[in-house]
Amino acid sequence: MTTETRDNFGHFLNIQSRWADMDAYGHVNNAEFYSYIDTAVTEYLVSHGGHDKDAATAIGLVVESGCKYFKPLAFPAVIDCGVRVTKLGRSSVRYEVGMFAAGDGEPAALGFFVHVFVDRDTMRPTDLPAHLRSALEPLLRAGDA
Amino acid sequence: MTTETRDNFGHFLNIQSRWADMDAYGHVNNAEFYSYIDTAVTEYLVSHGGHDKDAATAIGLVVESGCKYFKPLAFPAVIDCGVRVTKLGRSSVRYEVGMFAAGDGEPAALGFFVHVFVDRDTMRPTDLPAHLRSALEPLLRAGDA
Amino acid sequence: MTTETRDNFGHFLNIQSRWADMDAYGHVNNAEFYSYIDTAVTEYLVSHGGHDKDAATAIGLVVESGCKYFKPLAFPAVIDCGVRVTKLGRSSVRYEVGMFAAGDGEPAALGFFVHVFVDRDTMRPTDLPAHLRSALEPLLRAGDA
Amino acid sequence: MTTETRDNFGHFLNIQSRWADMDAYGHVNNAEFYSYIDTAVTEYLVSHGGHDKDAATAIGLVVESGCKYFKPLAFPAVIDCGVRVTKLGRSSVRYEVGMFAAGDGEPAALGFFVHVFVDRDTMRPTDLPAHLRSALEPLLRAGDA
Repeated sequence: MTTETRDNFGHFLNIQSRWADMDAYGHVNNAEFYSYIDTAVTEYLVSHGGHDKDAATAIGLVVESGCKYFKPLAFPAVIDCGVRVTKLGRSSVRYEVGMFAAGDGEPAALGFFVHVFVDRDTMRPTDLPAHLRSALEPLLRAGDA
Repeated sequence: MTTETRDNFGHFLNIQSRWADMDAYGHVNNAEFYSYIDTAVTEYLVSHGGHDKDAATAIGLVVESGCKYFKPLAFPAVIDCGVRVTKLGRSSVRYEVGMFAAGDGEPAALGFFVHVFVDRDTMRPTDLPAHLRSALEPLLRAGDA
Repeated sequence: MTTETRDNFGHFLNIQSRWADMDAYGHVNNAEFYSYIDTAVTEYLVSHGGHDKDAATAIGLVVESGCKYFKPLAFPAVIDCGVRVTKLGRSSVRYEVGMFAAGDGEPAALGFFVHVFVDRDTMRPTDLPAHLRSALEPLLRAGDA
Repeated sequence: MTTETRDNFGHFLNIQSRWADMDAYGHVNNAEFYSYIDTAVTEYLVSHGGHDKDAATAIGLVVESGCKYFKPLAFPAVIDCGVRVTKLGRSSVRYEVGMFAAGDGEPAALGFFVHVFVDRDTMRPTDLPAHLRSALEPLLRAGDA
C-alpha cells in the first residue's frame, strides 16, 4: 500500500482519538483525519515557529488538501502524526502528515495540505514570515525545495 | 418523558444532520447536540439581532450548558431547532433549545445554555447590547423574565 | 480560479453551516468541508440509493479524498452541495462535490472522494450493489465512466 | 468560581486540543468540551472496564449531560481530564469530568453525564455489567453511592 515509515517525518505530535471521531461504521471518519493533519501542522507553527494566531499579520490559507487512507483507525487510540515539508515557496508551503497508530511502523493514512500565506487585512499573498521559514526548513524532505 | 411541544418555541432553525454526527452506536453523538443548540441560538443573534462576530464589542461567553435526551436522532435527518429565552438579565441570557426530528411533535432533546456578555477587550461582564435585547424579548417565554 | 458551475452537478443537498464549523480565523475550517462532502454523498446513497447502514452487507470505504478551496465560507450560511460521479467502476466510485454558498454561482470549494465497496464481514472488495449503481448512473458526468 | 482540584478525580486521560476545536472567538467551543467528557469516560470503560463496543450486549445511552465553564481553553494545549463517579445505580451511572489545562490546578470546566445501560437489541434498561461495575467502583467519590 505504502512504503512510508516514521523515519520520513521530522516532527511528531501524538493526538488522542475521541469517541466522537468514529462514525456509524465504528472507525475514525474520513473527515476527522483532516483535523489531525491540521492540528499537527498548526501546533508546530505555534510551538516551534512562534506563530501567534491573534497577533500574526500573515496567516496561512488552506488552498488544497488531500489524504490517502491505508488502514482504519479506531478509538481509543493515540495517533502519532508525523510532519514534513515537501515545498517551501516564497508565500506557500506544502506539508505532508503521516498518521500512525501507536506502535505501528506503517501509516494508517498520509495527508497533505498547501498553505498560501496572506496579509490578514488585505487577504493578498505575502511572503512567508522569516520565523516560520526558519522553523520549517528542518522539516524539508531531502531533495525537495 | 417530556410534555414540550413545538408551540413552546418562538423561532426555528432547521439543521441537516451529518454523517459524521453519528458515533459508533449509529446515533447522533451526545456532544453533537450542543453544536445544534449553539448554532440555532447564534444564527438568531446574527440574523435577527444584528450580532457581528468581528465588530461586536460585547461577546457572549457560555458559562453553563446542559441537555436532556429523550429519543435518538440519526442520519440523514433535518433537525428542527426551536429557540426560546427563559431569562433575560442585565448581562446574561438563558436560552433553551428544543430539537425535533422533522415531522415529529415531540422533541428528541431539550438543551440550554447561559451566556454572560463580556467586553471583548477586558473580558469583564457588560450590559447586553440593546439590539440583542430587542431581538430576544419576543422569544421570552410567557411568565419568565 | 474555477470554471465549475451549478449545472455540472446532478443532485444537491443544502447544509446549514454551524457556529463550531468556523475556526479561530473566523471561516469554516478546512477539515469541515469534508463533513459536507461526506454528508452530501451519503445522504444520496441512503435517500436515493436505498443504502441501509445497518443492514447493508457491502459498505463503502474511503480510500482517498481531496479538496480545492476557492473562497472562504462562514456562518451563518446554507451550503448547497452538488454531487456528481466521475468514475463508476466494478467496486469503486469516485464522487465530486461542489460546495456553493447560497446564491453564489461559483463554488467555494470542489472536493472528491473514492469509495471502494467491501464486504462488511471480510472487508474484501466486492461488487457495487445494483441498487447503488442504478442510483449513481444518473449522476455520472457526460464523457466519464 | 470552583473549589475543585485534581485530587477529586480518580482517573485522568490527557487529550490534545485541536485547531478546529476553537471557534471564531479563538477559544475552545463550548460543545467541544463534551467530546472531551465523552472521550475520557469511554476510554476508561474500554481500557479499564473491558467494554467492547462491537460485542457488548449492554450499551450506555446518555440521558442527560451538562457542563460549567470556569476558564477558557485554547490551542495548542493538553487537557487533563479527570473522571469520577458520583452515582452508581443498578442500571445507571453518573460521571463527572474535571478538565484542567496542563499545569493548572484549577479546572477550566466541570462536566457530567448520566448513562442508562440498555440491552442493545431491545433498547430496554438492563443491569450494569459486572465488569463495568467493578471498574467504576474505585472512581466513586467518597460519600456517594
